[in-house]
Amino acid sequence: MSNPQHSAATPFFNSLCDFMATRRTIRRYTAEDVSQETLDHLLTLASRTQTMGGLQLYSVVTTRDQAMKRRLSPLHFGQPMVTEAPVVLTFCADYHRTTAWCDCRQANPGYDNLLSFLNAATDALLFCQTFCTLAEAEGLGLCYLGTTLYNPLGIIEALKLPRLVMPVATITLGHPAEVPPVLTERLPLTAIVHAEHYVAATPETIDRDYAAKEALPQNQAFVSENHKETLAQVFTDVRYTRRDCEAMSLTMMEALRRQGFID
Amino acid sequence: MSNPQHSAATPFFNSLCDFMATRRTIRRYTAEDVSQETLDHLLTLASRTQTMGGLQLYSVVTTRDQAMKRRLSPLHFGQPMVTEAPVVLTFCADYHRTTAWCDCRQANPGYDNLLSFLNAATDALLFCQTFCTLAEAEGLGLCYLGTTLYNPLGIIEALKLPRLVMPVATITLGHPAEVPPVLTERLPLTAIVHAEHYVAATPETIDRDYAAKEALPQNQAFVSENHKETLAQVFTDVRYTRRDCEAMSLTMMEALRRQGFID
Repeated sequence: MSNPQHSAATPFFNSLCDFMATRRTIRRYTAEDVSQETLDHLLTLASRTQTMGGLQLYSVVTTRDQAMKRRLSPLHFGQPMVTEAPVVLTFCADYHRTTAWCDCRQANPGYDNLLSFLNAATDALLFCQTFCTLAEAEGLGLCYLGTTLYNPLGIIEALKLPRLVMPVATITLGHPAEVPPVLTERLPLTAIVHAEHYVAATPETIDRDYAAKEALPQNQAFVSENHKETLAQVFTDVRYTRRDCEAMSLTMMEALRRQGFID
Repeated sequence: MSNPQHSAATPFFNSLCDFMATRRTIRRYTAEDVSQETLDHLLTLASRTQTMGGLQLYSVVTTRDQAMKRRLSPLHFGQPMVTEAPVVLTFCADYHRTTAWCDCRQANPGYDNLLSFLNAATDALLFCQTFCTLAEAEGLGLCYLGTTLYNPLGIIEALKLPRLVMPVATITLGHPAEVPPVLTERLPLTAIVHAEHYVAATPETIDRDYAAKEALPQNQAFVSENHKETLAQVFTDVRYTRRDCEAMSLTMMEALRRQGFID
């Protein structure tokens, strides 16, 4: 059976490739708003993303109110995008709604456990990434805030997330007020792709795969500004320290417990 | 500052919207192979996805060998796509490589904890979703296997995943041998979008948001085939039971412990 969609390289696929190759994170936005109509259009299309059993185990809280942005800001370590973007979106792993549906339909849900959290987090993240692709293609600019996983308790409180809802990603969204250079800093595929089975890293493969990254002028500047000897030390000693990761792991456990996903 | 990318609706954005609105999961594939060149092109572009600190906390194991597919097949509950697709991709949350880099560079990594697993799983899933969009736009067909989270230990064993690597998603990929109808079964935005703060579901909002889904002929057939009273019962009693979710949560804890992400 032939596939009507398939061809060597359609103009659409070529455009998508160009678009992906030149995408960049946008941290500065103009004063122009993002209309609810635009947002709804993008969210509706994004909801076409594959989802577990068609259950759509996610929800999104939109923040436009300035007071609410100021409340979220410190939870994202004061990153200025949170108060400066016209809209902030918090993507949540959500088993609350599905559980409520079951409760209303003489069904006995059993989704207060770790596996269900991971299923819902997966649904939420896939949905979020499709949303990001669509929003950027529309000409909007956005920044993905990984900090959502660092302060879940404060976000749960601020957004009044009920049991079985956990924030997993935050996007600041607006019209771009900057055109930053396209970052080309990515590891070669030899670092990330394994044929048939995983081949553990060796000092030789590390040198081969990280040499170009370590040689970039911006990364060398990063090392000297932080008074470190190696780029890896900037990550382990400054950006993502053991102490912070361990403390935030405890916070994450507490948040998962509070939201009913673990005992 | 004006944004050169932004305009009301570019032909590319319109094409992307049409593409998203008509995407479908493909479970049957032709005998035609997916070349390594095509795969590498798609993976390279997908690696442009945002990633925590530029660290790319993911890896992909590709499976083409028929014996390896037969080994993976039961771990995905014997879904025929695993042995029938020319290539199977297992996306993994990966802190092994980054930790090895740190070890080689006089840095002391502290990523053997829950937060680091979630950071890496996030990176892997965002990367995976961009890959899916690109692959489908190229004309390939794919099926996302959520079963990866159900049998992590068997997958870890089969693919020889070292400490600090966890499988989080599997994609079966090939050239489509079917053109299934576009599924239009999605909840209305009122079910998933909350303005400023989360509004918990009520029996009224559940009726409002689930009525159309429950009325679909295929879902009514699903209920009667399973001898259930409601669609929700098909999920709680047949597809995703409490017993299975709780057993698989224990397996997940064991896998996270074995891979070094929790104590």
